[in-house]
Amino acid sequence: MFKVLKTSGSARRGILTTAHGEVQTPFFMTIGSAGAIKGLIPSEIRDLGGEIILANTYHLHLRPGEEVVAKAGGLHKFMNWDGAILTDSGGYQVFSLSKIRKLKADGVEFQSHLDGKKIFLTPEKAIDIQLKLGSDIMMCLDECAPYPAEREYVEKSIALTTEWAKRCRTFFKKNRRFVINHEPTTNAPRLLFGIVQGGIYPDMRKKSAKDLVKIGFDGYAVGGLAVGEPKDVMFEVLGKTVPLLPKDKPRYLMGVGTPQDILESVERGIDMFDCVLPTRNARHGYLFTSKGVVRIRNEQYREDFSPLDPNCGCMVCQNFTKAYLRHLYISNEILSLRLNTLHNVAFYQNLMKGIRHSIEEGRYNEFKKGFLRNYR
Amino acid sequence: MFKVLKTSGSARRGILTTAHGEVQTPFFMTIGSAGAIKGLIPSEIRDLGGEIILANTYHLHLRPGEEVVAKAGGLHKFMNWDGAILTDSGGYQVFSLSKIRKLKADGVEFQSHLDGKKIFLTPEKAIDIQLKLGSDIMMCLDECAPYPAEREYVEKSIALTTEWAKRCRTFFKKNRRFVINHEPTTNAPRLLFGIVQGGIYPDMRKKSAKDLVKIGFDGYAVGGLAVGEPKDVMFEVLGKTVPLLPKDKPRYLMGVGTPQDILESVERGIDMFDCVLPTRNARHGYLFTSKGVVRIRNEQYREDFSPLDPNCGCMVCQNFTKAYLRHLYISNEILSLRLNTLHNVAFYQNLMKGIRHSIEEGRYNEFKKGFLRNYR
Repeated sequence: MFKVLKTSGSARRGILTTAHGEVQTPFFMTIGSAGAIKGLIPSEIRDLGGEIILANTYHLHLRPGEEVVAKAGGLHKFMNWDGAILTDSGGYQVFSLSKIRKLKADGVEFQSHLDGKKIFLTPEKAIDIQLKLGSDIMMCLDECAPYPAEREYVEKSIALTTEWAKRCRTFFKKNRRFVINHEPTTNAPRLLFGIVQGGIYPDMRKKSAKDLVKIGFDGYAVGGLAVGEPKDVMFEVLGKTVPLLPKDKPRYLMGVGTPQDILESVERGIDMFDCVLPTRNARHGYLFTSKGVVRIRNEQYREDFSPLDPNCGCMVCQNFTKAYLRHLYISNEILSLRLNTLHNVAFYQNLMKGIRHSIEEGRYNEFKKGFLRNYR
Repeated sequence: MFKVLKTSGSARRGILTTAHGEVQTPFFMTIGSAGAIKGLIPSEIRDLGGEIILANTYHLHLRPGEEVVAKAGGLHKFMNWDGAILTDSGGYQVFSLSKIRKLKADGVEFQSHLDGKKIFLTPEKAIDIQLKLGSDIMMCLDECAPYPAEREYVEKSIALTTEWAKRCRTFFKKNRRFVINHEPTTNAPRLLFGIVQGGIYPDMRKKSAKDLVKIGFDGYAVGGLAVGEPKDVMFEVLGKTVPLLPKDKPRYLMGVGTPQDILESVERGIDMFDCVLPTRNARHGYLFTSKGVVRIRNEQYREDFSPLDPNCGCMVCQNFTKAYLRHLYISNEILSLRLNTLHNVAFYQNLMKGIRHSIEEGRYNEFKKGFLRNYR
């Protein structure tokens, strides 16, 4: 299922085979929370080099409901995407979106952010929903400790996460044959990932990693980072956590991050990323370019009839000027959201292509330095 | 410039040659008020069969300003559209969007709906802006009488509209060589259209038409209809107005309308249309199909995995289901706006293709009846 093709330092270039195709690693998953990328159609993601996207169990459970998606033949068919899909477990959204959240041994009770309805999510339920969505990579339900959190809280939290991971694994093994199996393009099975927690405490991370590896998963995520801790703390924890994970399994850093974050994390051996940054920042007019972030609303672009990024081959940079993108943004045009998103997604996919290519050629460090020299 | 190829009853099939290509009539102009179609890129409009779009002088004057557009090389280049562009004069927007509006002999004073700034628009200024935008078809500044309006008001109003039309014509003749001339694709000159007003009074319409024809324009618009009067009154006035217009010039019914309205108006000899309906209704989830309007948010589509319109070949109907479109709409996804708009624009362009084809074959009436039989 996962094969490391080449390394450059600790950076890895590999292939992860899913039920919906091979995915080249390291990769970045564009977020389609509700089964849609903001303003883009699936074929555009594919054209930009995206082979896998991320959808949210929490969002899809609330709307339209996994039963509707299952009746449609699974999420791939529902949204017309034939690439791979990773679904998170809903644990993080319960943590970040719900007003109330009651942790119990059996699961977590929370309120829908849409209508306030109370929902009880268990490890089994989280996997059941993901099976009904027909996800290619499913995530265990975890508890994401806030930052800062006391040692004692984190200790209990990882014990709960480990317990839930066991139950997810059991339920997954027993029921995975019931997955919505819309036209899988390979013979690969569906995958289940565990999530290493432990806050900023290296010994907790160690315990969490050891427990999860013992249970055994198809891949391991590092969760609970980028939740407010300083960057140097994040990379210190990451640097200590990655070596605890099996070399032959993919490693996924959840919810990260900026181009710089991604470069630093690949260097530490991370293979998979997802983040709202490219799509959310697009909607706020923050556009990624090879020279850094352009805030397109700025007056300086009023009569700037040059492309956003002359080094970018995307449809936006090939057809429109900064002055026009600024005009669309200032005028609240829907086209602004679409074009900005397309460009930012293209930028992230191109970054990952550059990363993969440089690892193949054994010059990852050089690539990283070159990128950061221009990017301000 | 304009050539009638074929007639079927009073319905006409022709070709209007503009500086940016030939446009087959009857046609419908998708609206891009601020130099952008809601959520669509120009190549999509072209792919759907659109050869001409409408942009608003008022919107573009306020933002980004005609000087910026002129520096970009004209509106075609600014928005990356190589087809024809008709610009309205701003008269209607002053009437519909501005809180204050002071009519003076010399022009009209109004407030920007964006920042309340006072702006004085004269006939000369309206043409000057359109020249700077590089429009292919420019409209005279007119005064659009409200409905209902007293005879006395309308009498004064058409006198003013005629006076302004004269001034527009004079300014246009003197200055048209200064037009932003971004890569015209034909040798055709820029065109100026007059606007027949007169409210619901046939004798006023007659006077207005006669005055304008005497001045002489490249085409004639019928303005001031579809502003609140009953449908039968509108078609009665239209039926009496069209015969007053020269046979060898294109006729443009402004701001109309529903598919039914368009069919009725083509039957009466109208060649050109524009309306916010397909794009605005798309954003509100009202989707046009061969069987009538589908309100996509309705519960009945929750698990309807069939295409929106099986008779439609557009990207949306080929790739997505009603259940998915409903989900996107309910979830306030940006993609909903894009897909809905694309489909509605496709529907209108297909309607016009059907109209043109049936006139060519001399069976317009049959086409109209067939369409209306299915459309509820």
